Amino acid sequence: MNRLYHVPLSPFCRKVRLSLAEKKIEVELVEERYWEGDSEFLRRNPAAKVPILKLDGRLMSESAAICEYLEEKHPTPPLLPASPELRFEVRRLVSWFDDKFHHEVTTKLLYERVNKKVQKTGYPDSANIKSGARAIKYHLDYMTWLLDQRRWLAGDQMTLADFAAAAHLSSLDYISDVDWNRSANVKDWYAKIKSRPAFRSILADQVSGFPQPAHYSNLDF
Amino acid sequence: MNRLYHVPLSPFCRKVRLSLAEKKIEVELVEERYWEGDSEFLRRNPAAKVPILKLDGRLMSESAAICEYLEEKHPTPPLLPASPELRFEVRRLVSWFDDKFHHEVTTKLLYERVNKKVQKTGYPDSANIKSGARAIKYHLDYMTWLLDQRRWLAGDQMTLADFAAAAHLSSLDYISDVDWNRSANVKDWYAKIKSRPAFRSILADQVSGFPQPAHYSNLDF
Ligand SMILES: N[C@@H](CCC(=O)N[C@@H](CS)C(=O)NCC(=O)O)C(=O)O
Ligand SMILES: N[C@@H](CCC(=O)N[C@@H](CS)C(=O)NCC(=O)O)C(=O)O
Repeated sequence: MNRLYHVPLSPFCRKVRLSLAEKKIEVELVEERYWEGDSEFLRRNPAAKVPILKLDGRLMSESAAICEYLEEKHPTPPLLPASPELRFEVRRLVSWFDDKFHHEVTTKLLYERVNKKVQKTGYPDSANIKSGARAIKYHLDYMTWLLDQRRWLAGDQMTLADFAAAAHLSSLDYISDVDWNRSANVKDWYAKIKSRPAFRSILADQVSGFPQPAHYSNLDF
Repeated sequence: MNRLYHVPLSPFCRKVRLSLAEKKIEVELVEERYWEGDSEFLRRNPAAKVPILKLDGRLMSESAAICEYLEEKHPTPPLLPASPELRFEVRRLVSWFDDKFHHEVTTKLLYERVNKKVQKTGYPDSANIKSGARAIKYHLDYMTWLLDQRRWLAGDQMTLADFAAAAHLSSLDYISDVDWNRSANVKDWYAKIKSRPAFRSILADQVSGFPQPAHYSNLDF
């Protein structure tokens, strides 16, 4: 049986879940509370990070490498375009979200508010929250600028770049940290992604101690 | 003229320099002191990070996306193998070094000792140095384990995984933070990479305030 070891609000896990679902690869989701230091999990993966995908008997870590592998083995529907120039743009944006956005926004809002409580490692630091709340505006404006010129973030086709962005934004939306009124075209873009069947499992996530807000799974948010 | 905006000891820049050199794509190296907040540079790239490659008139950021693009446009010599399984392993290791190793070692040793001084942002934090010095041992042992089974880090062929690893280790070697006596096969592996023509420019780097140690460019270190 294929399995994805994951944490519900992890953006790296969500990106992989979206790719798998879009490609109709069925996996059993197994929540892996890595901070509890379960040694069986560490044995499975020296990096000790989720997501870890068990696919066709192999254990795979690192979300970027997993998504490229899925693309090569299960090319339909394609989540990377055909030309090297467009593929570059997709990968650039995936790194933009998984490196820059992650560092400037996700770690400052989601990890402060949720991970610290769930993992019992302290209280949210208000300077970080402020800095994350400031940075997300700048990122939403950058997305607005991209979407002014393009139907999807990297071009005219939905790609891994959209999934990387939606993975971070959906996790932040779970804690109501995204101001959807800031940009009509970012909101339209998110509504399109949100209504895909591949998104259903993400909209059904529940995290104990953090009740799902009403707008989170509403397609008409 | 093709150009690479870079910082000499940046591991992300070094990985791109190695790919370019191995593929014999000539670029002019332009040092970009991004911390001085030169606005022309910021205009060129909203991420405000090096490396930035100007190639065939386009400006490209994000080292992973750049290396994949170079691979697609200039496939010879190949730095990614042919099978999806081996390609996965290469990309997993690139992420291992650029995410985990970077976070646990490079930021704790190189950025503490060099970047803080060069960028005038303070003094090395001894807790970080200690933690980086402990973590590098564990990473060298992981490389030893890989190289016990393989000629190169990801398999029988030299790949981007070797360049990602060598990029971090060479920058740390510039400040004498790599104990080459810890593992004979890691040392042999580094000697092989170091002797490649693609490595010459990296061995010639000089950083003011940090004189190059004698062993750094010595092929018989
Ligand atoms: N580069 C990894 C990052 C994954 C990652 O950072 N996962 C977090 C959860 S969001 C984690 O498992 N952290 C555990 C740790 O760092 O110890 C990927 O893309 O898969
Ligand atoms: N994900 C980027 C990371 C590049 C990066 O972090 N570069 C550092 C120098 S080693 C930088 O320019 N930092 C400037 C900043 O973060 O403001 C890549 O792979 O190219």
